[in-house]
Amino acid sequence: MSGVGNPSIVTLTTDFGVSSRYVAAMKGVILSTAARHVEIVDLTHAIPPHDIRSAAVALAEAAPYFPSGTIHVVVVDPRVGTSRPIVYAKIGEQQFVAPDNGVLSRWAARQEPAKIVRINQPRFWRPRVSSTFHGRDILAPIAAHLASGVKPDELGVADVELMHLTWPEVRTVARNIEGEVVEIDSFGNLITNISRDSLAQVPRDESVTIHCDEHETHGIFSTYGDQPSMTLIALIGSGDCLELAIVEENASAMLGVRVGTPVRVSW
Amino acid sequence: MSGVGNPSIVTLTTDFGVSSRYVAAMKGVILSTAARHVEIVDLTHAIPPHDIRSAAVALAEAAPYFPSGTIHVVVVDPRVGTSRPIVYAKIGEQQFVAPDNGVLSRWAARQEPAKIVRINQPRFWRPRVSSTFHGRDILAPIAAHLASGVKPDELGVADVELMHLTWPEVRTVARNIEGEVVEIDSFGNLITNISRDSLAQVPRDESVTIHCDEHETHGIFSTYGDQPSMTLIALIGSGDCLELAIVEENASAMLGVRVGTPVRVSW
Amino acid sequence: MSGVGNPSIVTLTTDFGVSSRYVAAMKGVILSTAARHVEIVDLTHAIPPHDIRSAAVALAEAAPYFPSGTIHVVVVDPRVGTSRPIVYAKIGEQQFVAPDNGVLSRWAARQEPAKIVRINQPRFWRPRVSSTFHGRDILAPIAAHLASGVKPDELGVADVELMHLTWPEVRTVARNIEGEVVEIDSFGNLITNISRDSLAQVPRDESVTIHCDEHETHGIFSTYGDQPSMTLIALIGSGDCLELAIVEENASAMLGVRVGTPVRVSW
Repeated sequence: MSGVGNPSIVTLTTDFGVSSRYVAAMKGVILSTAARHVEIVDLTHAIPPHDIRSAAVALAEAAPYFPSGTIHVVVVDPRVGTSRPIVYAKIGEQQFVAPDNGVLSRWAARQEPAKIVRINQPRFWRPRVSSTFHGRDILAPIAAHLASGVKPDELGVADVELMHLTWPEVRTVARNIEGEVVEIDSFGNLITNISRDSLAQVPRDESVTIHCDEHETHGIFSTYGDQPSMTLIALIGSGDCLELAIVEENASAMLGVRVGTPVRVSW
Repeated sequence: MSGVGNPSIVTLTTDFGVSSRYVAAMKGVILSTAARHVEIVDLTHAIPPHDIRSAAVALAEAAPYFPSGTIHVVVVDPRVGTSRPIVYAKIGEQQFVAPDNGVLSRWAARQEPAKIVRINQPRFWRPRVSSTFHGRDILAPIAAHLASGVKPDELGVADVELMHLTWPEVRTVARNIEGEVVEIDSFGNLITNISRDSLAQVPRDESVTIHCDEHETHGIFSTYGDQPSMTLIALIGSGDCLELAIVEENASAMLGVRVGTPVRVSW
Repeated sequence: MSGVGNPSIVTLTTDFGVSSRYVAAMKGVILSTAARHVEIVDLTHAIPPHDIRSAAVALAEAAPYFPSGTIHVVVVDPRVGTSRPIVYAKIGEQQFVAPDNGVLSRWAARQEPAKIVRINQPRFWRPRVSSTFHGRDILAPIAAHLASGVKPDELGVADVELMHLTWPEVRTVARNIEGEVVEIDSFGNLITNISRDSLAQVPRDESVTIHCDEHETHGIFSTYGDQPSMTLIALIGSGDCLELAIVEENASAMLGVRVGTPVRVSW
């Protein structure tokens, strides 16, 4: 998708809710502003209102699959209209336009941004900027200009650091790895921050126990179908992290487990 | 986006529900019928079933951001298959295809339609038309033909007036402006029909009181972040109307306020 | 839409939930892999988790409206990562890539597949394939390669039969037709498996009675607006099957009727 004539790709991540007219307004502005054909893709609009951490996780998990040069616009922005800056960042092969509120910090924790620009050139914005919808009035037109060939340096001034959120760390002590649930997917699967790499020395058989709240299961399997329906199972999920699931059921709902619940692997 | 080679844009507004296969069928028909590349954008599919007024508001708020010439298809059509007409309308720089049931009347209240055509030429429809899904069988193919260069006049006969719904009016009496809540957005913010223009003479400081049901707040602020979390706040929203919000919370849920609740500004 | 220069169309049907980041990852992979412009359309992502039958119905109802040659990717795959095969199938003018778990069997029941290929050529997949997300790692890249001109025969080996699910049959006995509710749409309308053809000899007037659970109604009407609000009404819906609806209300919620409820037409 990198040849001449292929459209630039812009993704949208917001907490506006599914099928929101605010998202449509942003798409309208992008299509009105771009000088060439732009392909707009919804990354997700189901981020809980104002939940910067949840948006940071969704973005870090989905952005890497997009073509090099894709422009990811993020509008989870509880401080809209205040002095919080809006930034452009190039991190890996992906480009981002977002409020600098930590929403990029999970992805940036994996690799250093190659470029950061603090946005301050109103000539690339909508002529009248509201105080409450910078997604439509600043971020959308900036994405359209980037997609049309404007250089990031034209948008503002170079900056050196993005706002940083603290992400829960995994601790390994003797034959124990301690992490936590960082995301619950739409199937109710419990996705942890314990990576495949950190499990390199851990056996996969019944001698390993995974504890989550008061629940436990033995062994690390390959996929859901390896155990019968209704079984609590541990496996390494599609994002290369340890995941707990109940086969063909919703583990979060059945176990009452939420983001932040501690998970321990012992062997 | 108006150059040769750029795709025509068609937006879809329905009450079919999010991720409905009925929407997919309409997109399939548009892509099958169009003689050139069409870009389809979802405006919203989250309109409550049969809620013409809600669709009219969403359309009036989002349509203006789209490129000139965009074709907006609206299928909120409780009287589908009866004698209610289907119309094409050009209003401002935007084009619409919709049942003539008032769904265009909020946008048309702001500016006179430049052209209205009552659709009656079946050669532009699907060969077999169902009685219950004109969105797929009439409106989608018409949008595709318009996007492919068919002229509106070919679709039917000229008409002079769209069906009119009555919209709540704002009354100004002495130092009181009385309006009402006309929309609740996905954050639970309460959007009123009191425009920025009608507030031109109103102070922004603590001397102004905004009443909504039995609740009240003082002052008109610029943005949500101007007050601490959990504060009831009044501001002029991104659609240039007075809005009530609870900072970082859902005002509609917390206050039990719905569309139609009176709002009064006094100073 | 079949001329040179028009994009190939890929639709997505999943049980990932609306606005899932997993869907975005699949779109990213398709756009990253395709050698030419691909138009991606969401068919639906609102399939209940693991509900193969529901996906089969949505697919059979929506796919026929897409342009000839459209590639429909289906990821409702409770046995992901086990030995269940992934297949390519050409059925009618439409192409499909799906796990061979019966999800194609409703559409295939209407017309014999013209070609079936059992996928086994990893050179068309992502270099590293997870055990839990073949949608992203196998099906998405295959769709992108097909859209870019790879021939189905290159993807694997010819097969002769798709997995078959049993679909409820309609029985006609004397002046009785017995079927059942097979789908409930987003309006709460009850869609049955009793086709327009099977009703050819049945009168439309008050002499025909339609029974559903303990409820009954008389006559088969053209459209919802033929009866007043709140009336239980029978009609032939947009998919050419008998449908029960409550005018301007949600029949499923009001009557407590679900998929599988018997429906009988007698006259």
